[in-house]
Amino acid sequence: MQVTILGGGGFLGRRLAARFAADGAVGGQPITALTLFDLHEPAPLEAPFPVHCLAGDVADAATLARAIPAGTGLVVHLAAVVSAAAEADYELGIRVNIAGTQALIDTCRKLASDDRRAEGPGGLNRPPSYQAPRVVFTSSVASFDGGQAANVADDARQLPTNSYGAQKAIGELLLADATRRGFLDAVSIRLPTVMVRPGRPNRAASSFVSAIVREPLLGLEATYPVPADFRVWVCSPRRAVDWLAHAAAMDSAALGRDRGINPPGISASIDQILDALAEVAGPEARALARRIEDAEVEAIVAGWPASFAATRAPGLGFVPSEPLVDVVRGFIADDLEATRRDRVLG
Amino acid sequence: MQVTILGGGGFLGRRLAARFAADGAVGGQPITALTLFDLHEPAPLEAPFPVHCLAGDVADAATLARAIPAGTGLVVHLAAVVSAAAEADYELGIRVNIAGTQALIDTCRKLASDDRRAEGPGGLNRPPSYQAPRVVFTSSVASFDGGQAANVADDARQLPTNSYGAQKAIGELLLADATRRGFLDAVSIRLPTVMVRPGRPNRAASSFVSAIVREPLLGLEATYPVPADFRVWVCSPRRAVDWLAHAAAMDSAALGRDRGINPPGISASIDQILDALAEVAGPEARALARRIEDAEVEAIVAGWPASFAATRAPGLGFVPSEPLVDVVRGFIADDLEATRRDRVLG
Repeated sequence: MQVTILGGGGFLGRRLAARFAADGAVGGQPITALTLFDLHEPAPLEAPFPVHCLAGDVADAATLARAIPAGTGLVVHLAAVVSAAAEADYELGIRVNIAGTQALIDTCRKLASDDRRAEGPGGLNRPPSYQAPRVVFTSSVASFDGGQAANVADDARQLPTNSYGAQKAIGELLLADATRRGFLDAVSIRLPTVMVRPGRPNRAASSFVSAIVREPLLGLEATYPVPADFRVWVCSPRRAVDWLAHAAAMDSAALGRDRGINPPGISASIDQILDALAEVAGPEARALARRIEDAEVEAIVAGWPASFAATRAPGLGFVPSEPLVDVVRGFIADDLEATRRDRVLG
Repeated sequence: MQVTILGGGGFLGRRLAARFAADGAVGGQPITALTLFDLHEPAPLEAPFPVHCLAGDVADAATLARAIPAGTGLVVHLAAVVSAAAEADYELGIRVNIAGTQALIDTCRKLASDDRRAEGPGGLNRPPSYQAPRVVFTSSVASFDGGQAANVADDARQLPTNSYGAQKAIGELLLADATRRGFLDAVSIRLPTVMVRPGRPNRAASSFVSAIVREPLLGLEATYPVPADFRVWVCSPRRAVDWLAHAAAMDSAALGRDRGINPPGISASIDQILDALAEVAGPEARALARRIEDAEVEAIVAGWPASFAATRAPGLGFVPSEPLVDVVRGFIADDLEATRRDRVLG
């Protein structure tokens, strides 16, 4: 099976690619080739199958056609303009987060119609040989509202408080309709805020959630823009990758028309995250994090729901989150040394 | 105030324009000019203010800029590819129903930024003089699911069963976000199936709902593709125009972030509609309507909810629907003679 990861140069894309390379298969089907697609060409990856690294604009149909050749069985669509960036640049968010998703749909649709044409004149009356590729889409908690008081039900409507969330909700609608039409077979995972991200702070409004653990573990100060009892809906990178891999392999018939999954994250306050940090790395680490108000960031994250019921996902095979201390330990095991090296070199 | 109606050559657009011409004002503000925009140039309209009739593609930014000049206070966005047509032609639906709505937003956004630039270098730090135009958008019951068993709550999520409904739900999300950003000031009315439409059957899957009243009143046979106890959520053209005019004039602050309105329609079975027809025009008229199964149309309309709670709209000033017999009488008073003339001439 040909597998493509859009946003394959990013943090989660890279990690998922490593998982595929280790497994050599998705849901029991051997991977024959992997394409990593991103705005900048992803670095090579060692794997038991050929890995193609491509650079391009996800909203450009011709480029995308090269990334998703005929016979592609799985596309993981992680390419996105993140929250604060989509808020700062309306056009860019629309282009990447909406037009990019539409271009992915159009690419799959073209493969489907090419396939039907290849069957000849009687093709339309026979069951099409086209196998709609699984598309795993990362939607976001930012597509919901409710803020600190929320405990979002699985059938809650999406009334986003920011452009990123609106664009993700729109992506879900586009993909659900494309699924119904048979162009592809989508599963949309509304990812919690992923912590602990390695590297440097990025343009995501939630960047501070990772920074308050990562920076102290590097011996550096970190700040958060919200009160210490402010709660966020989070998950570890390990769990995010588990969920994406499961969404890639699961039997999608169990989803019916509702292609959106609220996976079982953790509702954690800043204090609880810092407690976990202290338990693992001592009170000195915890003392490096402190609040500095930032009204602009707070205005974005205040709208995001602090908690989800997430009752549907476990029955569909999405594994629960680990405790916060294990999230911190997971970062130390997987990423701390590499992050430290990057900082020294950078 | 400059007023623009996109889809101004259509049935509802035309009727709304006549209402504006009769009133001469919207919400107490005199209308200084009206632009009717449609794919084909709308016919001239007599009014106490200049009326400009323009033809063009709603998804084309340059064309739309001519239809929505600086200082526009109200845009009523009725331009759409209807349900069966959007199902038959995916690309056309995406282009008109999504790209058209995005082009409207981009046009308003450009007016806003032109306005800020005109204020000079200090402009960004002063309250902008730009008055975000009211945009009244016709969304649809087809953006919801649930079918015959449904009684849709005002805060229900939209999980559409067809491309038209998905595209309307996406339009709502785009407009709500554009409202939050201050580009415009949207009110989205999820119109029930409007009956009785004059003229001939069209590409809307719900076309039969009007036909079973209109055709018998013309002495002609009519068919419906669903069982006689099948229920539809309907309203009269009079009420649809009342609601659009109210949405154009209302204080939108009462809506908060939730810009979608489920107006108070009528949940009516085919039998009840035919009973109303019989009460007004006798049993001979009723006998002209009969069922002929059509699996394709039934598959589309079966997903649409048969009923809505519509508890929010009355408090916001949207007037209730009239009884079904008055809907039939309204068609006879407003449209029957003109429809008969058209048929004789056509």
